[in-house]
Amino acid sequence: MRITDQVRRILDWYESDNPGTKTSLARILMEGKLGGTGKLVILPVDQGFEHGPARSFASNPPAYDPRYHFELAIEAGLNAFASPLGMLEAGAASFAGAMPLILKMNSSNSLTTIKDQAVTASVSDALRLGCAAIGFTIYPGSDFCFEQMEELRELSREAKSAGLAVVVWSYPRGPMLNKEAETAVDVCAYAAHMAALTGANIIKVKPPTAHIGLDAAKKAYANIDISTLPKRVEHVMQACFAGRRIVLFSGGEAQDHVETVYETVRGLHAGGASGSIIGRNTFTRPKAEALTMLGKIIEIFQTKA
Amino acid sequence: MRITDQVRRILDWYESDNPGTKTSLARILMEGKLGGTGKLVILPVDQGFEHGPARSFASNPPAYDPRYHFELAIEAGLNAFASPLGMLEAGAASFAGAMPLILKMNSSNSLTTIKDQAVTASVSDALRLGCAAIGFTIYPGSDFCFEQMEELRELSREAKSAGLAVVVWSYPRGPMLNKEAETAVDVCAYAAHMAALTGANIIKVKPPTAHIGLDAAKKAYANIDISTLPKRVEHVMQACFAGRRIVLFSGGEAQDHVETVYETVRGLHAGGASGSIIGRNTFTRPKAEALTMLGKIIEIFQTKA
Amino acid sequence: MRITDQVRRILDWYESDNPGTKTSLARILMEGKLGGTGKLVILPVDQGFEHGPARSFASNPPAYDPRYHFELAIEAGLNAFASPLGMLEAGAASFAGAMPLILKMNSSNSLTTIKDQAVTASVSDALRLGCAAIGFTIYPGSDFCFEQMEELRELSREAKSAGLAVVVWSYPRGPMLNKEAETAVDVCAYAAHMAALTGANIIKVKPPTAHIGLDAAKKAYANIDISTLPKRVEHVMQACFAGRRIVLFSGGEAQDHVETVYETVRGLHAGGASGSIIGRNTFTRPKAEALTMLGKIIEIFQTKA
Amino acid sequence: MRITDQVRRILDWYESDNPGTKTSLARILMEGKLGGTGKLVILPVDQGFEHGPARSFASNPPAYDPRYHFELAIEAGLNAFASPLGMLEAGAASFAGAMPLILKMNSSNSLTTIKDQAVTASVSDALRLGCAAIGFTIYPGSDFCFEQMEELRELSREAKSAGLAVVVWSYPRGPMLNKEAETAVDVCAYAAHMAALTGANIIKVKPPTAHIGLDAAKKAYANIDISTLPKRVEHVMQACFAGRRIVLFSGGEAQDHVETVYETVRGLHAGGASGSIIGRNTFTRPKAEALTMLGKIIEIFQTKA
Amino acid sequence: MRITDQVRRILDWYESDNPGTKTSLARILMEGKLGGTGKLVILPVDQGFEHGPARSFASNPPAYDPRYHFELAIEAGLNAFASPLGMLEAGAASFAGAMPLILKMNSSNSLTTIKDQAVTASVSDALRLGCAAIGFTIYPGSDFCFEQMEELRELSREAKSAGLAVVVWSYPRGPMLNKEAETAVDVCAYAAHMAALTGANIIKVKPPTAHIGLDAAKKAYANIDISTLPKRVEHVMQACFAGRRIVLFSGGEAQDHVETVYETVRGLHAGGASGSIIGRNTFTRPKAEALTMLGKIIEIFQTKA
Repeated sequence: MRITDQVRRILDWYESDNPGTKTSLARILMEGKLGGTGKLVILPVDQGFEHGPARSFASNPPAYDPRYHFELAIEAGLNAFASPLGMLEAGAASFAGAMPLILKMNSSNSLTTIKDQAVTASVSDALRLGCAAIGFTIYPGSDFCFEQMEELRELSREAKSAGLAVVVWSYPRGPMLNKEAETAVDVCAYAAHMAALTGANIIKVKPPTAHIGLDAAKKAYANIDISTLPKRVEHVMQACFAGRRIVLFSGGEAQDHVETVYETVRGLHAGGASGSIIGRNTFTRPKAEALTMLGKIIEIFQTKA
Repeated sequence: MRITDQVRRILDWYESDNPGTKTSLARILMEGKLGGTGKLVILPVDQGFEHGPARSFASNPPAYDPRYHFELAIEAGLNAFASPLGMLEAGAASFAGAMPLILKMNSSNSLTTIKDQAVTASVSDALRLGCAAIGFTIYPGSDFCFEQMEELRELSREAKSAGLAVVVWSYPRGPMLNKEAETAVDVCAYAAHMAALTGANIIKVKPPTAHIGLDAAKKAYANIDISTLPKRVEHVMQACFAGRRIVLFSGGEAQDHVETVYETVRGLHAGGASGSIIGRNTFTRPKAEALTMLGKIIEIFQTKA
Repeated sequence: MRITDQVRRILDWYESDNPGTKTSLARILMEGKLGGTGKLVILPVDQGFEHGPARSFASNPPAYDPRYHFELAIEAGLNAFASPLGMLEAGAASFAGAMPLILKMNSSNSLTTIKDQAVTASVSDALRLGCAAIGFTIYPGSDFCFEQMEELRELSREAKSAGLAVVVWSYPRGPMLNKEAETAVDVCAYAAHMAALTGANIIKVKPPTAHIGLDAAKKAYANIDISTLPKRVEHVMQACFAGRRIVLFSGGEAQDHVETVYETVRGLHAGGASGSIIGRNTFTRPKAEALTMLGKIIEIFQTKA
Repeated sequence: MRITDQVRRILDWYESDNPGTKTSLARILMEGKLGGTGKLVILPVDQGFEHGPARSFASNPPAYDPRYHFELAIEAGLNAFASPLGMLEAGAASFAGAMPLILKMNSSNSLTTIKDQAVTASVSDALRLGCAAIGFTIYPGSDFCFEQMEELRELSREAKSAGLAVVVWSYPRGPMLNKEAETAVDVCAYAAHMAALTGANIIKVKPPTAHIGLDAAKKAYANIDISTLPKRVEHVMQACFAGRRIVLFSGGEAQDHVETVYETVRGLHAGGASGSIIGRNTFTRPKAEALTMLGKIIEIFQTKA
Repeated sequence: MRITDQVRRILDWYESDNPGTKTSLARILMEGKLGGTGKLVILPVDQGFEHGPARSFASNPPAYDPRYHFELAIEAGLNAFASPLGMLEAGAASFAGAMPLILKMNSSNSLTTIKDQAVTASVSDALRLGCAAIGFTIYPGSDFCFEQMEELRELSREAKSAGLAVVVWSYPRGPMLNKEAETAVDVCAYAAHMAALTGANIIKVKPPTAHIGLDAAKKAYANIDISTLPKRVEHVMQACFAGRRIVLFSGGEAQDHVETVYETVRGLHAGGASGSIIGRNTFTRPKAEALTMLGKIIEIFQTKA
């Protein structure tokens, strides 16, 4: 398979990673309809762990079946499918080779008051399931952020030495951050930057708002244009090693109107985002609708930026 | 031994598990009077650990002897017997090969105020005792749920790689959940779903009530029929990978009237449950009564659903 | 499953083995048409390794397919199927739970002049494939017999501690033994005894002839009746801890006339043999013929001795 | 990437391998111009180790550069590139993701009189280089065959548990086999069968001649049609689990006339071979010629058999 | 149990061994009719491995049963029973605690021309069977003596660190030693001394003859009184750290007349031997006879020396 120049250039950013990790990144970057463009759309399905099965799947009952999500990702021509251990195990053999898999290593849940995550999978699981990457969530700002970063350190080291890539979901939260601050542009850029500093190959954050979450940061943002989503995304990309890391953004809150989703995606693309990780907004809809939406999102990322 | 089509189909769900784990599942699924039907009744005896010996066995003193439970499971024609290390050790040689054993790896106790469990056995114990599976309890929602899931991850990985199956008891509890919420249908389905996501081969939950435990879940349940036990069980089964995982339900609270137990079991069966794990309601009764009750329960699961 | 008294008594012989190994032995002893009688017929298929595929399977081409042998063992109602790694891997998932498997750990081949065997599998393979036992061949008398016994020691220790049973094929050969001596009654009894001393749970030898292979043994045999096959088998059984070990005999050389095979089996049974391991004489024949033959052999072992 | 039915069917043969190994096989089977057809052409470059650089590359000096071979494999649209550690290290980063790599784990050399091979790489090397498989050579019949099979056992176990596939080159040689016997049809089928029994996912042998190498095998071949190359290949395929293993054949001896190579490949294809591993006959020629030849070979395998 | 002064004094010799090894020695020294005297009679049964079952047991068929030997040792009031793995496993649970066991770790056999021994057991076997010691045979002078001593080193180290005692059978043989030299007094003393130097707690040799086996030793023996068995035994004892090691002697060759055995034992005792290891001369006789003989031997060792 001829690796495109765009992908080749991206792989070169990861100059200290071994060829195995580059190969895993290439598997993801060359897959699907965006394969070769350097842009990515990834389907994450860990909503069931985070919010429970009914809240995740009741609006579209076929989605209770793990195979549905493998099929959705394949039919939509996405770049990868990310999910916790049990869901990947339920389809990894049937769909072997059909879609790069990202094993989501830790998960939170809505039944507990402790705002941490459980590490529910091992790097050896990722290898035996044929995954291209592991995924890990950190909550910068939370009381657990140091433990989480240290867990990430160990898993990342083990995963990368075995040729896997590492995807870090960086979701700021904690005593210093109110709801608004969690998606504030300064906090978002900061969270993305910390993920990059931990060695993440792919970074996932939420679309940043124009809010500034930290007083201490206000001065620094005096001369940064954060007036539009594209500008804010551009800033986040810059915060990740001057744009030399893959940074993905969620589709934002679950939306009733798909046009709102496209609007956000257009903003991400205009700002130079590497792509989207989009879950809830797809699998809660009937498959035909989800495929249409994903097709449209892919189309946006296919346009010249 | 010819594996029936029903069992063959169930084994196929576990496509990422090795032939050893499938063999262990087949040993359980092909055993006893329900052998080959795809339905299971399992005898669990960890009550002594959880509530003390007198509360567990005084009403039927022969049950103080571990061998009593092996014999009860064998005579009743059950699928497996689950118990902590010491009790299995007290009969595993005498009854070698007579009944698939599940080594209960962790246990709580009623003397402590800490609502965790101690891991009291190892995978090597399960192997040397000839067990078909390990059993593990998680308390989703509790302050210990993350540690428990991480313990489960390690034990599960080791057990499965050695060809054992993994049974997860998923009992929600914790600061957010009052007594009523612990068996609420949304919480029960959520707990079962999390067990599935951790990679459990067999999931054990309590029969769900019509209560909704989490406010955040109420909207999602607006259009889900939870009016009857069968409907609620159907929902829990669906929450476990669209019915592609073995899910067992307890017999409910200890009952004076056996008819109440049968009523529950009929509801479980009508909802498509894989079977029952029924302890207290059997071994607290005289053996003859327990055998009659278990015979009746098996009969219910033998009827066409 | 109710373990019969005959099987219970056999399991009691292995008093130093853990319940896991006893459970594995029980799985084998309770399987198939002879299940529960204490007698066994096992299908071994390592001929392809030892003599090449054409010499093994050309006379009955369906036997080139590993699944054929699983099916033959199941349809014939045998106790176990023994084969090297690759052949078991080709069917262990499809036939999970349907037939106790014995992973043949070492194999010789006819292309080499070195009369040793290669160890081609690990205990972890046996566990992940759901096997009930490992099988190992020693050549007492050969230049490699010490190394082989030491390899056996390690594999046996590891296998037994994980609850597997150990089957030892004991085939005397070497500089001191000519062709006739290899099946001489003294040499055969000696080989069986050594297998017992290494801790084998199940011992496999060839049917002994009336020949005495070692001059030094002649005096000892002056008063032992070795005039008939039953008497010689009786002696071999006695040599294995006074009949307190499971000892299986091969069907003898490949035979054109099945009646010769039955004649041998009748002799084995009359002498108190635990059963037969019979490969070549079955799978080289069309399946219908093989099933008839195996049915007949089972029938012989079912008769009162 | 949609896995074709042909490939899906092949993956199903490997029912005891984990989804990771199936994914690695799929990566190879879906790559290049034959991707999805179930047929493969692989470029092996270990000639330099076996015969020295000048004998391997002097006739086409660009081939001294490892990158030449990566490019050749990519431009020709092959399925995989196999080579020892150092050569893969010289291009694995530059060509990350562009071509499935097979790390050749052991190599012989022409400076020594000992007809063994050195194991020059580790499974962790294969993982850090992003390989899809490890490759290993055994010499059935040689004085080292047992040690080689035991080395293979350990490497194979480790590789498969990490989700890699295993390719075994099975080249008979040794005191019992003269030059003619090494490619005799009985010996070739036997060597392929042994590789299958060790658990190989992909087997590589030489095209078999009509010679019978072992006297003991002559009788078995009395009724097997070995008159033509297609018939002989058919027999070798059958010897590998009734055609349920991927078996590749070399292009035969280095040939001056490409037509001779095509003639052989046509015979292989007509006999149902899975494909070719073809090295010397390609890289010793100028690149344009090699590409023409490989294009022609691929074309042959693309025709309906 | 009050440890006698005699035993206390013996334990003090082993001042660098840990309390566990001393405890194991005490278990042996305090057992049976000689318990507390500092003298020992041990029953070894490895004849079946060395010479085959018929030559060992045919003259007294009950001896085919391993339990016979446990019972003989217990009824005769001996200090310990030594045997290879399989035979100990056949009784270690039934007779748990009834008799100190010595696990014979290596064994030779009469079918091979190679004069080595196979190590057929592990220290972990000795521990799980509840043994007090391991036993190991070395052949000083043989081509394998260095390997054997090195195997002994490893096993001894592991055994002693786990609190087991170590018994070394030191049987000189090899190219420099003819039959007569193997029991020559100089060679016997030399062999015993080497065993002591390897760290053996208990040393077993054959009764020495008045022959001098090595020319080089003749001068040294000019002034040593070796005219009688007591004098020669005295010399051997002296050779073992001036009598500060437990040294046991075999009963000599199998004897028709028991009086010859007693004569030898009287000589051993007169020379200060620690006791006898006596196998063949007991179990080849009917039990009543054997008990009489052992009673008589014990009586000899009970007399004041």
